[in-house]
Parts: sequence; C-alpha cells; structure tokens
Amino acid sequence: MTQTGQHEVDLNADLGEGFGCYKIGDDDAMLSIVTSANVACGFHAGDPEIMAATFRKAKELGVRIGAHPGFPDLWGFGRRVMPFSPAEIERLVAYQVGAAMGMAAYSGESLRYVKPHGSLGNLTESNTDIAEAVARAIHAVDPKLPVLAIAGGQLDLCARARNMTVFSEIFADRGYTEEGRLVSRKLPGALIHDPEYAAARAVRMVQTGAVETLSGAMVPVRIDSICVHGDNAHSVEVARRVREALVAAGIAVRAFC
Amino acid sequence: MTQTGQHEVDLNADLGEGFGCYKIGDDDAMLSIVTSANVACGFHAGDPEIMAATFRKAKELGVRIGAHPGFPDLWGFGRRVMPFSPAEIERLVAYQVGAAMGMAAYSGESLRYVKPHGSLGNLTESNTDIAEAVARAIHAVDPKLPVLAIAGGQLDLCARARNMTVFSEIFADRGYTEEGRLVSRKLPGALIHDPEYAAARAVRMVQTGAVETLSGAMVPVRIDSICVHGDNAHSVEVARRVREALVAAGIAVRAFC
Amino acid sequence: MTQTGQHEVDLNADLGEGFGCYKIGDDDAMLSIVTSANVACGFHAGDPEIMAATFRKAKELGVRIGAHPGFPDLWGFGRRVMPFSPAEIERLVAYQVGAAMGMAAYSGESLRYVKPHGSLGNLTESNTDIAEAVARAIHAVDPKLPVLAIAGGQLDLCARARNMTVFSEIFADRGYTEEGRLVSRKLPGALIHDPEYAAARAVRMVQTGAVETLSGAMVPVRIDSICVHGDNAHSVEVARRVREALVAAGIAVRAFC
Amino acid sequence: MTQTGQHEVDLNADLGEGFGCYKIGDDDAMLSIVTSANVACGFHAGDPEIMAATFRKAKELGVRIGAHPGFPDLWGFGRRVMPFSPAEIERLVAYQVGAAMGMAAYSGESLRYVKPHGSLGNLTESNTDIAEAVARAIHAVDPKLPVLAIAGGQLDLCARARNMTVFSEIFADRGYTEEGRLVSRKLPGALIHDPEYAAARAVRMVQTGAVETLSGAMVPVRIDSICVHGDNAHSVEVARRVREALVAAGIAVRAFC
Repeated sequence: MTQTGQHEVDLNADLGEGFGCYKIGDDDAMLSIVTSANVACGFHAGDPEIMAATFRKAKELGVRIGAHPGFPDLWGFGRRVMPFSPAEIERLVAYQVGAAMGMAAYSGESLRYVKPHGSLGNLTESNTDIAEAVARAIHAVDPKLPVLAIAGGQLDLCARARNMTVFSEIFADRGYTEEGRLVSRKLPGALIHDPEYAAARAVRMVQTGAVETLSGAMVPVRIDSICVHGDNAHSVEVARRVREALVAAGIAVRAFC
Repeated sequence: MTQTGQHEVDLNADLGEGFGCYKIGDDDAMLSIVTSANVACGFHAGDPEIMAATFRKAKELGVRIGAHPGFPDLWGFGRRVMPFSPAEIERLVAYQVGAAMGMAAYSGESLRYVKPHGSLGNLTESNTDIAEAVARAIHAVDPKLPVLAIAGGQLDLCARARNMTVFSEIFADRGYTEEGRLVSRKLPGALIHDPEYAAARAVRMVQTGAVETLSGAMVPVRIDSICVHGDNAHSVEVARRVREALVAAGIAVRAFC
Repeated sequence: MTQTGQHEVDLNADLGEGFGCYKIGDDDAMLSIVTSANVACGFHAGDPEIMAATFRKAKELGVRIGAHPGFPDLWGFGRRVMPFSPAEIERLVAYQVGAAMGMAAYSGESLRYVKPHGSLGNLTESNTDIAEAVARAIHAVDPKLPVLAIAGGQLDLCARARNMTVFSEIFADRGYTEEGRLVSRKLPGALIHDPEYAAARAVRMVQTGAVETLSGAMVPVRIDSICVHGDNAHSVEVARRVREALVAAGIAVRAFC
Repeated sequence: MTQTGQHEVDLNADLGEGFGCYKIGDDDAMLSIVTSANVACGFHAGDPEIMAATFRKAKELGVRIGAHPGFPDLWGFGRRVMPFSPAEIERLVAYQVGAAMGMAAYSGESLRYVKPHGSLGNLTESNTDIAEAVARAIHAVDPKLPVLAIAGGQLDLCARARNMTVFSEIFADRGYTEEGRLVSRKLPGALIHDPEYAAARAVRMVQTGAVETLSGAMVPVRIDSICVHGDNAHSVEVARRVREALVAAGIAVRAFC
C-alpha cells in the first residue's frame, strides 16, 4: 500500500481557528505554504464569519478546503477528551460537516475532505468505536466525501473498509514509535522543534514511504499528506522549511484531491 | 397570485426546540398534527441529538422537515433582535442551513425548505436588507431549496424576485392589520386564544385566499401553509382544532413540497 | 457523631435549574416543601435572572439559600464528568460561589452554604483530590461558609478536617450499599420510587441516625439534611410525603443554619 | 470638584481578556505600567483560570484589581450593545461583581472597584437608566465598593448621587467633544495614535484638571484615573509613554484606592 518513490505529496494545516475577536495562528502565512486547509467548524473554534473568510482566501490561493470537526469545547480548543458517546460523536460530526458544506457552498467552493480535530482526531487513531462513528457520520452526510486520516490509524482502516476515499497523513513535527504510531505528547521525543531536521526527515519519509521512528527505523505507511502546524512563528517556520525541502528534493507539493 | 377556493394547505410548526436536558413544547403531539416541521438548528435552540431525533420522528410520520435558523441566542430563544449586520446574518443562516442539511442527510432525509425563526423571521417580514441576506444565504447554499416566508413580507418578495421556490404562510393564532401585516405582539389583538375561533377563521382565510384583519376585512394573500404553535397544551389544542376544521371543510392538509 | 433520636432535620432540593426560557422542575412546589434550596450558579444551569428570582422567592418563604456549583456543561446539565483538573475545579467553584454570593447580596439575602452539583457532587463523595479542591475553594472565598456534603463522603471528611462548618446529607430516594455509600445509578436499587416507602424509610433513617442499606442494615451517619428532588411530578410527590411523614413522626423540618 | 494642580493620578487598563487558549493583549507589559487592572469577569472575556492568574500577578506587582463586567457576548467581545433591559443588566452586573469578588478572595486579594466594559461602559456614560442599573447592582452587592466611571458621565453622576465612592477616569487615547464627552469611534478624531502626543496631552489634562477637546479647549472634569489600552504593541507603547511623561512631569502614578 506504500508509495515508495512518490513524486508528490499534499501539505495540510489547521486554519480558521479563531473565534470572534480572538485569533490563533498566522493563517495568511500558512495559506501560502499548504495545499489543504483543515477549517474549524464552530465547535472547538471558528465561527461563520471566520469560516467564510477562510474559505474565500483558500479559494483565491488554490488551497483545498476540508472540514475540521472537533468536540464542542471552545474553552479547551478541542484538545480535551469530552464525555460524548460514539453515537453522540456521530451526530456532532454530521452537524459540523453539514455546516462546513453549507459555508463552502456559500463561498462558491466545495468541501473536499473531512479531518477530525484535536482529541477527537487522536481518538480516531486508536479507538475503533469512535473511528467508526466518525466514518459513519461522514459517509451518511456524503458517501463520496473523502477522509483525511492519521496513516495506519483506526479511522484510516475503518473508512477504507467502508470503501470511502481516504487520504493518509503523517506529521512533520511529531515523533513516531517503533510501531509507527504517534509518540504521546507526554513522552520525550513527541515533538520535533528543529526546522532543518523536520524538513530533512519529511523528505526521507516521503521518499521511503515510511514514518521514521525514534530509533531511526522506517515503518512503511501510505503518505498522501503531511500535517504541519501554524500556531506560532516557529511552527510556521517548520512548515515553510518542510515545503522548501520537499520541492528541492523534487517532490511536488500538490493537493491530494 | 391568490389561490381562492384552494383545496389543500400545509400546516407548519416549530419543533426540536429543546437543548440538552431542556424541552419546550410537545413535539410528539405536534408531529401528529402538522405536515411540515421547522427544526431548530442549534443556534437559538436545538442540538445535534435533538435534530437527529426530530428528523427521524418526522420521517417516520411523513412530516416534511425544514431548517429553522435563528440568531445565536440560546438564552433569549431567538426571540431577541441581536446586533448582527445583514452580511453576518447571511453567514449565520448559511451555516445553520448547511448543518441542517448535514443532519437531514445523516437521518436519511432531505431538507425541504428553510424558514427563519423568531425575531429573525420577523425582521425578514419588514426589513428588506435582512430579507435579502436570508434569501441570498439560502440560495447560495442550494438554489433549489425552497423558502417558507410570511405571506407578502419582504422575504416572500425577495426570494420570488430571485426565482427561488417560495411558499407563503399565514398564522392561525395571530391578528392581522388592515394592510395584511401581523399585529405587533405589543398591541391588542396580536394573539388569538380561542381554539374554535382560530379554527373557523383559518378555514375562512384558506377558503377566501386572504388574511382576516382586526376589522374583519379580508386582504388577499397567497396561502401555502398555516403556521401553528405547540409551546403549551393550549396552543397544541388550537393547532389540533385548526387541522380538524380544515379537514371538515374539505380542505386537505398536505405538505407543500 | 451520629445524632440518634434527633428531633429535627433539614430538607434540601436543587432549584433554579432553568436557563433563559427553559425550565426544569416545579420550583414553586418544592419551595413549599424544603427548608434549604441549592441554587444553580449559571454553569450547568441557572442564569442571573433565575438566580435573583429564586433567591427572592426563597427569601419570601423563609427557605435558606445555598450555592450549587457544577461543571460548566449546560448541555449535559452538570451530570457528566468533565475533564477539569482539581486545580481548575477549585477555580470553577470559587467563581460560582462568588457569583452566588453577589446575587444573594443583590437579593437582600445571604448565602448560607455550598453544595456541589451532579457529577461534581458525586466526585466529591469518592475522590479526595476533588473533595479537597472544592473544600479549598469554598474556604478561600469565605472560611465561614458552611458545606452541605454527602454524609460520610470525602468532602464531608475534608471540610471537617479544615474546621469548616459541615452539614451532612442523606438521600430520600437513593439506595445505600452495605458500606453506607450511594448505590451507583447503573445498578438495581439505586433509586426509590415509592413515595410511601421513601417517606417511611426517611423517618427510620433520621430516627436511628443511620442510612438504610439494600439489605435493610442501618449504617450510622450524621444526618443534618435530607436531599429530595423536584424534577418531575412524581419526585415532588416523594418530597411532599417525606416531609409529611417526618412531621407526623414528630421530627421538625427546619433549616440547618 | 476638579483637582487642578493634582500631583498624582491612577492608570487603569483592561486585563485578563483571553478565554481558554485565546489571548488578547500583552498583560505582562501592561501590569508593569498601570496601577489598576480592570479584569474581565467571564461574560465578554475571561474565565476562572485567567481571572485567578491575573489577580495573582496583579497582587504580586502591587496593581489594584477591579471587576470589569460586560455583556454576555464572547463572540462580540462585549463591544456590541446587547438587547438586555436595565433590570436584566442589573443582574448581569451583580453576578459578575460577585464572581470577581469570589475570585479575588480566592486569590488572597480584595476587589477594589468596578468598571463596566465596552458597550456597557459606553451606555453608562449616556444612558441614565443603564447607569442607574449598574450603580444599583454594585451598591446592592457591596455598598462600599467603589465605581470607576467615565468622568462626568451618567454613571459618575448616578453613583455619586447614591453616595457611593466614585473615581472618575479620562482616556489617554480618545478625543473629546467640546462638551467634554468622548468622540464617537465612528467620527474623525476619536482615536489618538501618536504616543508622544497622547503622553503630552495626558500630562496637560491632569495638570489642568480638564479634558482637552478637538479644538484644544479644556473642559474641567475630575480626574482620578487615566485609561490606557494594551490590545496591541502600539497601544502598549502609548501607555508606556503616558506613564513616563506623567512621572517626568512630577505627577505620581498611584492607585486611587
């Protein structure tokens, strides 16, 4: 399933994460770097004004837009595991995907994919029930809507089992265990801070079609997209260097859809 | 444009207006009376659980479902005029219509129409800018999506001018001025409480294709639907009697779509 | 520490649990039954309008008012365990107690006690860290402010260890394990529905200074107050019968402060 | 009532205006400049974590803390006029003042004053009913709690008429009409951007005990405090220059309480 020697890859980042007067991250900078924008849907961040503005800017720059549904937890920014059952999560996701489709249509664009946010995204990597719930919700709203999932995680598997279109992502700035899973943020090695190292490693991972573990081993996975972050100036720099290094290595940075 | 002598009419009511553990109105009773359900979209009331449950029940009973977007004002139940510009209202409506479409698809149904709620609905009767904003939002999300508008109000006119499908509604329990507009709730005669009177008047209005004013004059309007309420036991009784009287008068109660 | 043969007891209930237009429970009925009102503080339910109105009504009827802080979870009505650390819970409680003190002063009354609500209350029964956090928060806001705690639970113990004034409560309509702890709501015997049985059992518990377990054994506890509920007509009937039975048995129903 | 030739003045700024992960303004910089901190109370901004942290930092630096209640409008940051009646505003303010008192006590500090925020503050300048409501709320919660009011506005007058302690403020970066009122933000001259000009003008105003109008006329007012802002790097620079200029002119910058 791996695509060794692949000549192109998508870059995705979370965008539109403000609320009212509040802003997080440098969206303008990131929109000049990435090819896919995961846009918050108003539950953990975002509001109709921000969604419309983000969709419009993304459209102008040719960046593809995806829905980025999360837990209804503005205070915790969708990073906390909230006490919802898989069935409730299913409805939370369907609602947000629908809202994003409405805002995309309103902005003269189409929603190209869905990627769950924060703790909900993390849960879909390891929790089958929640991965199934998210896949079911997306499929119910629109069976042709692609999913952007953590490569090799439960959502990746569940959505493929439903014959949904799935794009698999790896992370430029996160460490991987020997099993090819994300290192918990509570453990050392979870985050990669050096832009040069992150960029060179991203190239290696795409070129070999594998994630690089803490020990340096390569675990083959499908890589359709690389997730980068834009929360602060440093992470924007990492994202920019990753893009430059990919291009310099002859890997086209191109939206997966 | 009036349909004098018409032989059928739709009955619509606001449904799914709870939030979490909170409930308002007797939805089960109303679903056995009306043919169209205006379902709250999570801003002034409603949540994904309630929307999904309401859509499912409506589907089982053959009641058509519409989106009922309102101001983001749970505390005020969407009955207060909130300080949003027409452009902001446009996005608020597009978001909610999209969310309702997502939940409808999730529930195996389709959204059949949009009707603005509460103070937003009232504004669209008299305020051209806001009526235009609401029409534009619905049209942008889906140009084929019908609008349910107060008969003869600005939204009715704006949406028809855009060649949108529009259904016009009158109110069973509200008084009308000599100009055929709703009597302000602050004035005497705004509300009709007697079920028998409301029912007989509803029949007269449908049979003549006109709203009956405070003085008893009839002002011709298009009547595709009659709005009834279900907030309390008394209003449910009014709704039930209106339906019975229509049927007894040979007027079929049938969804407009 | 038990008060066998005691001749008086307080009755407390949760009140003011609406939000905006939403109402839960029959507050007027309950205010004629109980002697202490646990008033929601705006996080899981309640708002400044409801708090002021409830405080005013309670004052008129001579019912003592307490703050009833809960998790910030209007959707879940404070019944879900939300992901807050003990330190965060400390601040959540301090904020709500302060708000309730402000509203009490505004209403010409004083706040007489604090009792944590729903899942937060349950956590303080068994989780020492959270019990300590709640005790610390109340003590920090006002060291003289009494706590109403589940008899024999961690909050009861923690607050007494801090030399705070503590009143201990038992539940009229909840089953007790052989250890004298509340039976989980997931298990049979958790809830007592028969008003006559609940009333007679409440009298037995007060007269013996002990909670009655599922097997009928009596586990001695301090009983300053009995918690009753008013969510629906049936629970109001239970509360009323409990009060009547206590009075008939010569036990005065009187506020603990 | 003016204090011409006064040798000291307070500097106040809005602080603690974040929410969850969201931040606005450079609180650390401002806490090194001002002597009084208007702390958001959780309705238009702020949460218990931020309030506790801001109170603690202010205490460490000897900055006095005040409650800064606003409309419940996180999305609009309290800058929109929300549809609440004076009576409802009264309760909104009482609640927030109480919450701030609770958090202050929790932080080992006392609340020194109350200043209404944003559009609520502006309304109290010109609207007598709302000014009365705010004064009544503060007085009801604690009759000894001082008010920080726009110099010469309705709240200033109402609170003095109630024999409340009132401190009057002018604005370093806002223009004044010939009547000594704030120039509407919609009109030219509303905002002063040049740090040097703002600083020199602030000194002139304090030295003469008067606000300087657009035409350069001086309208005498009581000046206990100067409001500065810290929303962005530029406004922090204005604040810093105002302080330096005051000190250089021999005017001590000292908390009014």
